Amino acid sequence: MTTPLRLGIAGLGTVGTGVVRIVRQKADLLAIRAGRPVTIAAVSARNRDRDRGVNLSDYVWEDDPVALARRADVDVFVELMGGSDGPAKAATEAAIAAGKDVVTANKAMLAHHGQALALAAEAAGRVIRFEAAVAGGIPVIKALTEGLAGNEITRVMGVMNGTCNYILTRMQATGQGYNALFEEADKLGYLEADPNLDVGGIDAGHKLALLAAIAFGCQVDFASVALEGIQNITLEDIRHAADMGYRIKLLGVAQMTGRGLEQRMSPCLVPDTSALGQLEGGTNMVVLEGDQVEQIVLRGPGAGMGPTASAVMADVMDIARGARLPTFGQPATSLRRCQTASSATPAPYYLRLSLLDKPGALAKVATLLGEAGISIDRMRQYRHDAVTAPVLIVTHMTTRDALDTALGGIGRLDVLSGKPVALRIETV
Amino acid sequence: MTTPLRLGIAGLGTVGTGVVRIVRQKADLLAIRAGRPVTIAAVSARNRDRDRGVNLSDYVWEDDPVALARRADVDVFVELMGGSDGPAKAATEAAIAAGKDVVTANKAMLAHHGQALALAAEAAGRVIRFEAAVAGGIPVIKALTEGLAGNEITRVMGVMNGTCNYILTRMQATGQGYNALFEEADKLGYLEADPNLDVGGIDAGHKLALLAAIAFGCQVDFASVALEGIQNITLEDIRHAADMGYRIKLLGVAQMTGRGLEQRMSPCLVPDTSALGQLEGGTNMVVLEGDQVEQIVLRGPGAGMGPTASAVMADVMDIARGARLPTFGQPATSLRRCQTASSATPAPYYLRLSLLDKPGALAKVATLLGEAGISIDRMRQYRHDAVTAPVLIVTHMTTRDALDTALGGIGRLDVLSGKPVALRIETV
Repeated sequence: MTTPLRLGIAGLGTVGTGVVRIVRQKADLLAIRAGRPVTIAAVSARNRDRDRGVNLSDYVWEDDPVALARRADVDVFVELMGGSDGPAKAATEAAIAAGKDVVTANKAMLAHHGQALALAAEAAGRVIRFEAAVAGGIPVIKALTEGLAGNEITRVMGVMNGTCNYILTRMQATGQGYNALFEEADKLGYLEADPNLDVGGIDAGHKLALLAAIAFGCQVDFASVALEGIQNITLEDIRHAADMGYRIKLLGVAQMTGRGLEQRMSPCLVPDTSALGQLEGGTNMVVLEGDQVEQIVLRGPGAGMGPTASAVMADVMDIARGARLPTFGQPATSLRRCQTASSATPAPYYLRLSLLDKPGALAKVATLLGEAGISIDRMRQYRHDAVTAPVLIVTHMTTRDALDTALGGIGRLDVLSGKPVALRIETV
Repeated sequence: MTTPLRLGIAGLGTVGTGVVRIVRQKADLLAIRAGRPVTIAAVSARNRDRDRGVNLSDYVWEDDPVALARRADVDVFVELMGGSDGPAKAATEAAIAAGKDVVTANKAMLAHHGQALALAAEAAGRVIRFEAAVAGGIPVIKALTEGLAGNEITRVMGVMNGTCNYILTRMQATGQGYNALFEEADKLGYLEADPNLDVGGIDAGHKLALLAAIAFGCQVDFASVALEGIQNITLEDIRHAADMGYRIKLLGVAQMTGRGLEQRMSPCLVPDTSALGQLEGGTNMVVLEGDQVEQIVLRGPGAGMGPTASAVMADVMDIARGARLPTFGQPATSLRRCQTASSATPAPYYLRLSLLDKPGALAKVATLLGEAGISIDRMRQYRHDAVTAPVLIVTHMTTRDALDTALGGIGRLDVLSGKPVALRIETV
């Protein structure tokens, strides 16, 4: 097979530019590895005039990504525009309809429309690959779909948003609060245009939903991810957790339980000596557990031009080499609609409450926890300010449902200032 | 494609039995993931009567693995006998000649005959896959060959022999010496029939040579791996290293230098806070570095029935799904004979010498180091026994060549009791 594989690249931001660079600079290496040349036929982006530091004059320019996706001289449509709907989705659909394979880094699009797009691609005999959509440069989609294909997957877990991990580890290291570090991350360009995608856990939730679909043979179901961001984590939480030997991480967990598929993306306490606990800055880590392989841990850069372009190229090279897997590792028609069990597995929890200085407040809280069947492992009340007293509680194993019941009751007591913080303690 | 993929499995030890179990117990899952059934046509092993805890009555039994490899009802020959030559090689060659694909866990065979076998397979239009040959359950061959296919690989590094890591970490944890823990490992069944394959670094050296061939596009060249085992590591070395903030690991490093391909498998000091330094017991870790992806770290079980069978099944599933890569990631005819540069990159070294109690001995040692251009960062002389004094020296950056020159001269001084220990300090 010496016919070139011709790419049409839509989106020339950091990642798209990185892909163009690799294809230009490594033409010989790619050709020898793929057994055929990999070339670029055409590109598309919003702004034609911007200097991206790469020579684009060899490529046809299309203003319209849909037109690019349909070009006869494009074999693979490389979608790097982003956004769950709009041009990215329109162009991806057009590419499939025109008989092109698709490589994308777009977690939002696949988390929302993955099942429909996978069905369309398979009906057309085309593939959609998305290594770059999850955990940046780490080849985790490949490890899960192919490397662990002989396993029944039991759990998938990970820190998959580098910006959140950057903010949390910098809070720990510098003693600065959430707001200061949010601003720092913003200045460094680490935040999405809508920062809630990062700090609200949505971006990481998209990634988790994609991994869960592959791992458990379920139709991707982002709406069922129990989602919580890091916006309410205070420096006090970080410090209290550290005192007890934990770090706070925005941790995603997906597992199949007796009650259905559990998908959670939320700040959790993990042991500070664990691999997840020691993960610093923008680095990502994914833990894959299977009945045969036990546990595989993958660590690497979660974002950036080189790492993300590396993941895009992994997909391009697979297609160039003739590897053609279904989008989620098995035919889209065979993916089940899985029952949701957002918080089936029990765990100990960390609670932080700001108690108003009223007689008997703490006793009432303890009573309501007891009534919900939650027993207390440790409790600390810190020194008062004028009006409120921070109270820390570490519970024994309980369920999120029991906890929500208790917290609902506690909320109605009128003894709290502000919302309670409840963080799961994951022993990983 | 709904034709079954029919396996012929030669070798029914731990791994072979594990593969049979997976194929039997997960038939539906494998079929849905592969898009076709995966079945076993025939098996072969030395002892037909042994109870392996799996039902083999559905499969044709062949006493001769070569006959198995040639069977018309076998599509993929799964070689799990081991041994660099003999029946494993004969049957693999027979399988290729008969037009079968090959899946093997046999690092020794590929380290010695990988280039010839790859050429034969490609000439016959067949593939040889060997995920299980390196780092047990970790899909590292896949990560390197496919996941990082868009990268120029700059360095590959890893702890890839679980038995050595078990012995070294148990020395650290229990304060027992090398010999006691060698015996413990033997009793636990952790050692190969020829234990020198493990503790001599040969097994890990085989693995490194395979990774290096893929990473740098070189013909596999095990003979050029600078190989050193862990047999001379004493409890004192472990303790001295710990005092300085290091752990001793049997570490493999392959990198392309200006002078050629450097491949080393030797005990090294690594920082105790690093991911490699913290690796305990039989777990393996591989670090892959590329110009785009920066650094990927993969951790997982290095041996055992489930993990190794999981890796074998990854290859089987790739073939079932139609993915067909050249053995070392590019055509065997395109692999270069790479220049060897066994110890090109400089590093600081840890030296332990047993000095005889003679006047001026230490001064003479220091002089010879100086004459070889090696400057000393730290030196300690420990309390004497009757006759010898252990001396520890940490050098500044130097090369192995300079060190060997100095150690040669020191050896001729007649002031040493026993062989000096020289361990590279790898800052990873």
